[in-house]
Amino acid sequence: MAVGLGPLPILHPVPGFELGIASAGIKRPGRKDVVVMRCAEGSTVAGVFTLNAFCAAPVILAKQRVQGTVRYLLTNTGNANAGTGEPGLQAAAHTCARLAELAGIDEGAVLPFSTGVIGEPLPVEKIEAALPAALADLKVDNWAVAAEGIMTTDTLPKGASRQFVHDGVTVTVTGISKGAGMIRPNMATMLGYIATDARVVQPVLQDLLRDAANKSFNRITIDGDTSTNDCCMLVATGQAALPEIREAKGELFAKLKQAVFEVSMEVAQAIVRDGEGATKFVTVQVNGGATHQECLDVGYAVAHSPLIKTALFASDPNWGRILAAVGRAGVPQLDVSRIDVFLGEVCIARQGGRAPTYTEEQGAAVMAEAEIGIRIELGRGDCRETIWTTDLSHEYVKINAEYRT
Amino acid sequence: MAVGLGPLPILHPVPGFELGIASAGIKRPGRKDVVVMRCAEGSTVAGVFTLNAFCAAPVILAKQRVQGTVRYLLTNTGNANAGTGEPGLQAAAHTCARLAELAGIDEGAVLPFSTGVIGEPLPVEKIEAALPAALADLKVDNWAVAAEGIMTTDTLPKGASRQFVHDGVTVTVTGISKGAGMIRPNMATMLGYIATDARVVQPVLQDLLRDAANKSFNRITIDGDTSTNDCCMLVATGQAALPEIREAKGELFAKLKQAVFEVSMEVAQAIVRDGEGATKFVTVQVNGGATHQECLDVGYAVAHSPLIKTALFASDPNWGRILAAVGRAGVPQLDVSRIDVFLGEVCIARQGGRAPTYTEEQGAAVMAEAEIGIRIELGRGDCRETIWTTDLSHEYVKINAEYRT
Repeated sequence: MAVGLGPLPILHPVPGFELGIASAGIKRPGRKDVVVMRCAEGSTVAGVFTLNAFCAAPVILAKQRVQGTVRYLLTNTGNANAGTGEPGLQAAAHTCARLAELAGIDEGAVLPFSTGVIGEPLPVEKIEAALPAALADLKVDNWAVAAEGIMTTDTLPKGASRQFVHDGVTVTVTGISKGAGMIRPNMATMLGYIATDARVVQPVLQDLLRDAANKSFNRITIDGDTSTNDCCMLVATGQAALPEIREAKGELFAKLKQAVFEVSMEVAQAIVRDGEGATKFVTVQVNGGATHQECLDVGYAVAHSPLIKTALFASDPNWGRILAAVGRAGVPQLDVSRIDVFLGEVCIARQGGRAPTYTEEQGAAVMAEAEIGIRIELGRGDCRETIWTTDLSHEYVKINAEYRT
Repeated sequence: MAVGLGPLPILHPVPGFELGIASAGIKRPGRKDVVVMRCAEGSTVAGVFTLNAFCAAPVILAKQRVQGTVRYLLTNTGNANAGTGEPGLQAAAHTCARLAELAGIDEGAVLPFSTGVIGEPLPVEKIEAALPAALADLKVDNWAVAAEGIMTTDTLPKGASRQFVHDGVTVTVTGISKGAGMIRPNMATMLGYIATDARVVQPVLQDLLRDAANKSFNRITIDGDTSTNDCCMLVATGQAALPEIREAKGELFAKLKQAVFEVSMEVAQAIVRDGEGATKFVTVQVNGGATHQECLDVGYAVAHSPLIKTALFASDPNWGRILAAVGRAGVPQLDVSRIDVFLGEVCIARQGGRAPTYTEEQGAAVMAEAEIGIRIELGRGDCRETIWTTDLSHEYVKINAEYRT
């Protein structure tokens, strides 16, 4: 039931970044569930990770190792290796060590990523048995297959790609993501991998990724449940024949930033479009806040309200529920008489009450669409924030009531 | 689908407190939807009200008027008179003035309460036309009929009653409540009315109500959506032949406090048991917190998680979702290796990981019950908090997708 999400667009290969996919049969025999990514020597790598205190074993390891030299990213689906304690850490380290052995590199240069059921022991042997096939499969034009290989409850693979030209040299930014439930990334995201052939020093790359994630992955929510396994990685292979980017300024950096932002946004929104049971893609825009935080508080109060989400599913312009959510968002000294609310372009509430011009037919027309905008004008300042979310459907309950059985 | 909620218990009349019910046909012809309550002269009245910034017109008026002499409480269902701006305030004042005129009292002594759809104009004429019948119906033994008269999406009426004897005099505390959706009371509740024939000075009564609400109404959540119309009132008619309670101490006060707490708890939990689409009654207990607030943060993160709520609906002991919610609750420097989680009496997670003794069969046995306890031991201090909530079922989506249509 993905909303406005078609087949994958063309995903341009990134020189210096290869992907290999194999099947370890973790949840189902034959399913692609192991993805290995190889970064060319000299690549810089940045990562942002979940702030969930129960972060998974692979997240703990990847966070430590991203500080050093990174050559391989090893991802499995079907098992999150979260809530698994010390044995989970050992299991993650073990699979990395085996990959390092096969590739003839230092084991600290392999970063692990896992997604799937929480609390089950990682099937180390199955994963290790699949590594040779994944390594043999490594190639630069494998992005589309890898996008499928990292899926769990996703119904469609997610990817985006941009190219720009600088001083006659083409630079590529390509990314893929997965995720459909347990989605409220916090300073990170579900699994996302973005690579570019630009050459960027690590601190600049890290800041760039953080900025991009804060405007894309960190602004989406499906169910408000921050995952234990969120990670987003940005790899710069440096294979493009252009000078190294050493500072966050200049024309080349600006072009790269634009491309990274666009790819991040497209794959982040793809996660929402494929949200569990989603029948609507909803943009919640909060303008006129005194602070960014209060805009976010209002936006998330609206985006997480089960009453609003079920009304969206029913295409019911139940604007009273929107006002109620704004009112409970905890904004200090909120003057409701300054608040306007728009559904698409239709003003539904003016100065805190029903807009005099509003008719139910206008609201119903907007709600009938698959893509819906809710805009809240707080009238308190100049800050603004945008969040993307989904509705709450019968299918959502079905998926999550039946996920493990 | 109410969970563990039977027919109303015996609701003892409270001398000095009469209730009258009538039908104004606000949503459906013939439905009991107007309730008038009369407090004997000399009664003291306390109230707690929603902290939603978009509080409804009747809440604004009732908050002001509860400071003065209160003689009548006027409740309508089917229309919340919220998000209605200045005309809404005038409409609420108008119905109160009409009741005052009929009763021959000052209009400031009438407090209005409304519940139902947000954003529609209050049908003032229909309500006013029903007032004579409601007044004619006033009697002390009308609690059960009034409990039905204040229902909206509730499937069963809710009430509780306690009596105690002090110095040979019987004192009664009786209360009713309504609510099944848009339930996360914040320093107040959905509509709740409690009366006693004890004589209590207003400041003591107000503190008593606030304490009772903080342990009962303010600890329940169905969907996390704080209503615009929450109110809970406590009336002390002073008809019992006992000394006036002037301070929050002594044996009489202790007995009264106990009775008020028990009635509050019973009618608050009844709201959860009758939660929209509820098939489970869930007690979330968080112990060992360094502060009460962090216990509440963890408790609400669990109680509001759609992933946990759908797992509860499916009777699936998906404990990984519980750990994930605890981990994202925002507790500073949370050491997950100190956390134990229990489902009923079964330890499912020990020191942050799956408990070695845990088997899926043990968890499934607890989850198969209609009443489920989730206990989280944080191991950080001595604070503890308890919250009551429901599961998230297909029926919940159905009810809220179809509520207005």
